Amino acid sequence: MDTAARREQLKEALVDAALRTIAADGLGGLKARALADKVGCAVGAIYNVVEDLDELILLANTKTLEQLETILSMAIQPGEGTDWAVEQLVALALAYLDFATAHRRQWRALFDHRTGEKPVPDWYRRDQERLFAYVERPVEQLRPKLAPAERSLLARSMFSAVHGLVALGLEEKLQFLPPQTLRQQVVTIVTALGHGFARGAYGAAASGGPSPDW
Amino acid sequence: MDTAARREQLKEALVDAALRTIAADGLGGLKARALADKVGCAVGAIYNVVEDLDELILLANTKTLEQLETILSMAIQPGEGTDWAVEQLVALALAYLDFATAHRRQWRALFDHRTGEKPVPDWYRRDQERLFAYVERPVEQLRPKLAPAERSLLARSMFSAVHGLVALGLEEKLQFLPPQTLRQQVVTIVTALGHGFARGAYGAAASGGPSPDW
Repeated sequence: MDTAARREQLKEALVDAALRTIAADGLGGLKARALADKVGCAVGAIYNVVEDLDELILLANTKTLEQLETILSMAIQPGEGTDWAVEQLVALALAYLDFATAHRRQWRALFDHRTGEKPVPDWYRRDQERLFAYVERPVEQLRPKLAPAERSLLARSMFSAVHGLVALGLEEKLQFLPPQTLRQQVVTIVTALGHGFARGAYGAAASGGPSPDW
Repeated sequence: MDTAARREQLKEALVDAALRTIAADGLGGLKARALADKVGCAVGAIYNVVEDLDELILLANTKTLEQLETILSMAIQPGEGTDWAVEQLVALALAYLDFATAHRRQWRALFDHRTGEKPVPDWYRRDQERLFAYVERPVEQLRPKLAPAERSLLARSMFSAVHGLVALGLEEKLQFLPPQTLRQQVVTIVTALGHGFARGAYGAAASGGPSPDW
């Protein structure tokens, strides 16, 4: 095996070890020394294959995003129209809730990790964006006249709203919610949001009122 | 001044010092030694007036909730009906965004603080609940038939959705959003949510469709 292949193999092993550590103990449990021990390399060798622990965390988070994408893609059904779009948004939101519930620490690491002054690298942004595409398709059915940039923004805002529900619900910040109640609230909020958007696109115009500025 | 009054005065001074520390440096900056120095008492004296730093943080967070309540109460307009309710929800959401933007560290401390195994005390829960009452009134106009417990739950879920938008927006977790864009997204999402709820209460029945299970 040549040097490049060995480096790649070590990098892969380190990312796997980082992901397992995050899944078991959360971001706070990640230490260079322990990772080196896990993969059987010297601490210094880590910095031959990644720039710093931040890069390793982002690479591990990318694996989490891939797992999330697998779950989201299973929620996708073919279709079109308002009812399909609302059902699709609800299915995606519930898939997100299920993923966050089942992989709590990995999910939390996606949001708790801060790269500080350094910008998030482009490859990580692209991995995030692939996920938002799942939300953009139903949003396009609900608001067909939106420009792509606005649709993309709206898909992110819808995701942020669902994330707020899931995050405050799972972390029990406001109150303890039984899992079934939290699920039902996600359905309620996303259904209202979806139908509210469809009304924004069609309802206000159909009723002869002024076109909404949103 | 008797002992009880002196204790009360020290407690008040410590809470003020904790709040100023959180506002300047965030939760991470809070240390017993530095607080004692600020108010001019011995470190041990802190534990004569509060049980632990957790209690001091909750007392400081209560002051933050009071400041937030002042801001929210200024967004309240008298009225009734769907349009009033939607406008009211939008005004409350924007007031929340403004508060979080202006008092970033205090706002973050409300959510970052974890009391660990100990349950959050009842007096703190009651302070939170007073704030949700502002959201429950417009929700009642949108969904008048909901039982009080369901309305209360829905108000919290709406808050969680707005919080997700504000949190991911301000912390720039998904992308950088100019403040005006984030504002507009809050208006868009809350308007859609509000009208979507009103439709859930009236629209589906009026159109002859099945009553929605949400």
